[in-house]
Amino acid sequence: MVELLDDVGAFMPGDRFAHSPLGSGRLSGLTFAVKDLFDVAGAITTYGNPDWARTHPPASATAPVVLGLLQAGASLAGKTKTVELAYGLTGENVWYGTPVNAAAPDRFPGGSSCGSAAAVAGHLVDFALGSDTGGSVRIPASYCGLFGIRPTAGAISLAGACPLAPSLDTPGWFTRSASLLAGVGEVLLPANRQGADGPLLRVEEAWVNAQPGVAEALRPALEKLEQLRGRAIGVRLVPEGLDTLFQHFRMVQAEEAWAALGAWVEATGPRFGPGVAERFAAAKATSPADAAPGRAFRRLLQARIRPLLSGGAVLIYPTSPCPAPLLTATLAEQDAVRQRTMGVTAIAGFCGLPEVTLPVGTVNGAPVGLSLVAGQGQDRALLALACDAAAVLGLPV
Amino acid sequence: MVELLDDVGAFMPGDRFAHSPLGSGRLSGLTFAVKDLFDVAGAITTYGNPDWARTHPPASATAPVVLGLLQAGASLAGKTKTVELAYGLTGENVWYGTPVNAAAPDRFPGGSSCGSAAAVAGHLVDFALGSDTGGSVRIPASYCGLFGIRPTAGAISLAGACPLAPSLDTPGWFTRSASLLAGVGEVLLPANRQGADGPLLRVEEAWVNAQPGVAEALRPALEKLEQLRGRAIGVRLVPEGLDTLFQHFRMVQAEEAWAALGAWVEATGPRFGPGVAERFAAAKATSPADAAPGRAFRRLLQARIRPLLSGGAVLIYPTSPCPAPLLTATLAEQDAVRQRTMGVTAIAGFCGLPEVTLPVGTVNGAPVGLSLVAGQGQDRALLALACDAAAVLGLPV
Repeated sequence: MVELLDDVGAFMPGDRFAHSPLGSGRLSGLTFAVKDLFDVAGAITTYGNPDWARTHPPASATAPVVLGLLQAGASLAGKTKTVELAYGLTGENVWYGTPVNAAAPDRFPGGSSCGSAAAVAGHLVDFALGSDTGGSVRIPASYCGLFGIRPTAGAISLAGACPLAPSLDTPGWFTRSASLLAGVGEVLLPANRQGADGPLLRVEEAWVNAQPGVAEALRPALEKLEQLRGRAIGVRLVPEGLDTLFQHFRMVQAEEAWAALGAWVEATGPRFGPGVAERFAAAKATSPADAAPGRAFRRLLQARIRPLLSGGAVLIYPTSPCPAPLLTATLAEQDAVRQRTMGVTAIAGFCGLPEVTLPVGTVNGAPVGLSLVAGQGQDRALLALACDAAAVLGLPV
Repeated sequence: MVELLDDVGAFMPGDRFAHSPLGSGRLSGLTFAVKDLFDVAGAITTYGNPDWARTHPPASATAPVVLGLLQAGASLAGKTKTVELAYGLTGENVWYGTPVNAAAPDRFPGGSSCGSAAAVAGHLVDFALGSDTGGSVRIPASYCGLFGIRPTAGAISLAGACPLAPSLDTPGWFTRSASLLAGVGEVLLPANRQGADGPLLRVEEAWVNAQPGVAEALRPALEKLEQLRGRAIGVRLVPEGLDTLFQHFRMVQAEEAWAALGAWVEATGPRFGPGVAERFAAAKATSPADAAPGRAFRRLLQARIRPLLSGGAVLIYPTSPCPAPLLTATLAEQDAVRQRTMGVTAIAGFCGLPEVTLPVGTVNGAPVGLSLVAGQGQDRALLALACDAAAVLGLPV
């Protein structure tokens, strides 16, 4: 069924991943897709790489997060393409094909949860599960004009999901409406709805870091949200510079990625597509000592930012500083965008904070998102804010 | 006894205000003075104005805050001069004489708690009690090179103290050392020591508003405190502008001052010194409707700032944008300084936040203070931070 409709190349081929609901509830009647790094019992999880697929048996159990969605009444339409081992932000997959960004077909869909984003943007499913380590839900959501969330670190189980950098990995999901973004959260998130009722904090570095056209496209939304929530407080959270933050994040991610996946890489000698190969080579060269300054910086940043948000304040900034790169972009151009982007995504990533991106604007026809970031554990309150914000901004509620 | 030593003109004449300790404890062996707007049983509280003194009977009871200090072992040396009805910031009193600023004798001591500041700066007592509505402890502390605190609104009883603007009035105190500033707090403040362990927030408007020489004199201290507490986060809390904040504060203060004191002014027709007369005339002309936008702005500012500090973050900025005005300054020059100053002091004032000022620098030989502002009720933690900061900055601990 799905294969017939999949004109954006979002899904892994085959219907062996489809699954009927296991109950009824908040998600009854809805369809969803799952990034092919979450296990579905009986099927091989490919992790976006043929050598991974070849060297792993079929999953013996379905990931609890997927089970939760099935039990809430949703139907699983299939598994979606991922960047190989989730280690990339453009969404390219040379083995299974790069999904089409329905919102900007001449541009990358963003990744690593590229197929999940493409499936929702292409109206193939109502929502889709992805995962986010350095931006892999937030960035494709921004690129494809979708709502997306990276929840508080540790709030939702990653059992049955392939690891990339365990201290940074989270699940996440995409929708076309704010209410469904919140609805999936009602199923998956702990019950607390406290927080996110404080002032908006406009993170100046991230606004300055954004391309002028991106900042311009998002500023009217910021101003409307200020009418809803009061004037934003301007903050400078990273005086060391976003590039410094990126470098620290990159090292921590690389060290963890090699610790999680290096043994398999060494034993298997897999073929990797462009970019991914270079990142694993760099990860192999990253020792724990190399990553120590990054881990220290992470603690410092947490100590600096988390207390600011515990009273309900909400950070606001462009999700990605640029729209999706054109499909014709060189690897060097893609890398420049990746670096500039991850200095921003690392804020919530390093601090374990929940981040929602709203599909607020376009630049030359390509979507760009506006992010709201709340204190740890304030995910449900943040999703409620996203619904209020969508109403104010004229987005699909 | 006191009169013999009072070469800075800090005290109200007469020894009828002196009082032996009523117990022993944290403050045993120490002497203190009290601004002459707090009642001491048996003596007339002058409130800095001869007509007030003439129309009020001797106090029937001693203010609880004064009793608390006596019970903790301190000796009351006497009452100190105040600006008339506490309505002024320079510290001038044409009826009883303006106290001398021992740290800068050619300049005003600051007020309205001018005598209390002068008594401590002149080494006449170990500490002194004042009160603060729009800066009346913080500003003279900054001008005289002292430690000073304005506690959380409502944390310490103002029973037996003359009102100026009840929703803004707080007691406060001056010392020459950080540990005694904290020691008095141990006697007077509620027990909670939570908070103030979060990041420093550098309030950009207040740094920009300061004279360049003042910002320059304080910046090295900021940098040393960053070594202690981590890099400061730059924040812009008042995008409407500090002048707008001043105007709102002024209206709220004026309306409350007339509500509290107007009946007496109308009935008595008191003589007032320069500046004070004009301020009461303006207060009389301020209706509740005139102050409504100010009260609304106050709620907005509270909603904006309080949540930021609930997690332990601490604001940091110059206490006063200028050193004390020269004694030769014109009324217009004094008013310009007052306006520029109260746009800053109104931050903690409007939000009911505890603020400590540290005697950190000098400009042309005149002292200027650096302020730390914590969340509501975090007074003791703020005082502990002030002690740590004093140690790092080489100030008297």
